[in-house]
Amino acid sequence: MIIFKKVVIIGTGLIGGSIGLAIKRNRLASQVIGISREFKNAQRAKQIGAVDKASSTFEVVQDADLVILATPVDSIMQIALKIAPQLKADCLVIDVGSTKEKIVKKLSLKIPNFIGCHPLAGSEKSGIKNLVGNIFPGSICVLTPSAKANKLKLNRIKKLWERMGSRVIVLSPREHDRILSFTSHLVHAVAFSLINTVPDRFLNLSSGGLKDSTRVASSDPCLWSQIFLSNAKNLLTSISAFQTKLCDLKLALKNKDSGLIIKILTTAKRKREILG
Amino acid sequence: MIIFKKVVIIGTGLIGGSIGLAIKRNRLASQVIGISREFKNAQRAKQIGAVDKASSTFEVVQDADLVILATPVDSIMQIALKIAPQLKADCLVIDVGSTKEKIVKKLSLKIPNFIGCHPLAGSEKSGIKNLVGNIFPGSICVLTPSAKANKLKLNRIKKLWERMGSRVIVLSPREHDRILSFTSHLVHAVAFSLINTVPDRFLNLSSGGLKDSTRVASSDPCLWSQIFLSNAKNLLTSISAFQTKLCDLKLALKNKDSGLIIKILTTAKRKREILG
Repeated sequence: MIIFKKVVIIGTGLIGGSIGLAIKRNRLASQVIGISREFKNAQRAKQIGAVDKASSTFEVVQDADLVILATPVDSIMQIALKIAPQLKADCLVIDVGSTKEKIVKKLSLKIPNFIGCHPLAGSEKSGIKNLVGNIFPGSICVLTPSAKANKLKLNRIKKLWERMGSRVIVLSPREHDRILSFTSHLVHAVAFSLINTVPDRFLNLSSGGLKDSTRVASSDPCLWSQIFLSNAKNLLTSISAFQTKLCDLKLALKNKDSGLIIKILTTAKRKREILG
Repeated sequence: MIIFKKVVIIGTGLIGGSIGLAIKRNRLASQVIGISREFKNAQRAKQIGAVDKASSTFEVVQDADLVILATPVDSIMQIALKIAPQLKADCLVIDVGSTKEKIVKKLSLKIPNFIGCHPLAGSEKSGIKNLVGNIFPGSICVLTPSAKANKLKLNRIKKLWERMGSRVIVLSPREHDRILSFTSHLVHAVAFSLINTVPDRFLNLSSGGLKDSTRVASSDPCLWSQIFLSNAKNLLTSISAFQTKLCDLKLALKNKDSGLIIKILTTAKRKREILG
């Protein structure tokens, strides 16, 4: 079922490419055009059937019905402001950045039909070369409309994500950034710090635990530096909360308080089992 | 190829049961007897072919050629000292505990043929109900003999683990405990603290990162409290080292120093990629 006639995806990396593929496979648009900073990535997206046409210029947004901004966080605003004057009045614009408050605040002023999105479907890998098919079924996509967002337009975007296989949750940009600072950004900060603590010469004596716990530490450094800085205040709060929990455990260990250690570990086990 | 005539496994949980199964499948012993605190676990081990006979009494160790202590860390010493007077003079004794210095120091004085072992093949699961076949191929087993350990006997134990599929590394008990405090015990301490930091109501908004990073947090609390306390000094050191790395990242974030953040994340990515 066609939801949009002409869709332009700016940034044909892992997420942008996956969206193109999901739109094409589910026939959700008549035409999908991909734009990439490096033209060869948009061409690659075309080769694998994620877009119908690769473009190297922003002019193609002029008659688009939906523009999807799928670049790193720092470029989203910059590109959005650049293309804004060229868009049709009823063109919808969404982004897929990992932080939302700054982006939604700024862009909803300039682009009336802007709706922030964050599909929780990425991985530590990035780039079109790591595209592995449809990554959305079973995943959550958080929509973070501004308070003034048009309900009908929000519903169209909701339908788009649902047809690609995601379960949609609507949150305010502020709630999104606070929650994700715990469930994602802190997780990355901890993983980067954890692997940096282990001396190289010890790494051959690791079991599956270290490997799984630090999987996300091989994420792209530039991408994640931008995410961290765009949500710095919340992340500093979640890091502090984590430091307190670690200090509690350390103190129990110093005091050889096995009762307290077991209590801490039992709470952790219960919480972890909620995740399945 | 038979390496030992009669083998007794004390503690038929996930690791003890897996050893029994690997010994039986590879025909490394004439007879394998399993003892468990709860007799039904030893019986279950017999049902699935991990031991030939289930026993509820330590008397079966009297004519054993190899005794394998596969109970939680705190019970290993207690049980070893209890059975020591009953063992044949040439009976070999090994344990599979996650920490080695205290155990090897004490037991090598009482049992001349004691050799500490630590197969890095466990998981967050425990108990015979989670036994899934041979877990040793492709894994590492660290042997931590005392300085006075007999080389021929060490080689027999080495051969046993190799035939079960493990790659054997020999370390002093002290080196083992120091290294594992970074590559395993710290990883668990961080995972327990991380999941305890995330409010329950946020857990439904987590992606794969949080799930992988906290997998080991569903490990058995009593078992891990014992491991932590038996290696407390090293673990406190590794936690402090981790706290320093986390503070470095936090400071870079406070200072909005994207250059330093990218540098920290690039080091992490390089180190993580060593793990494969």
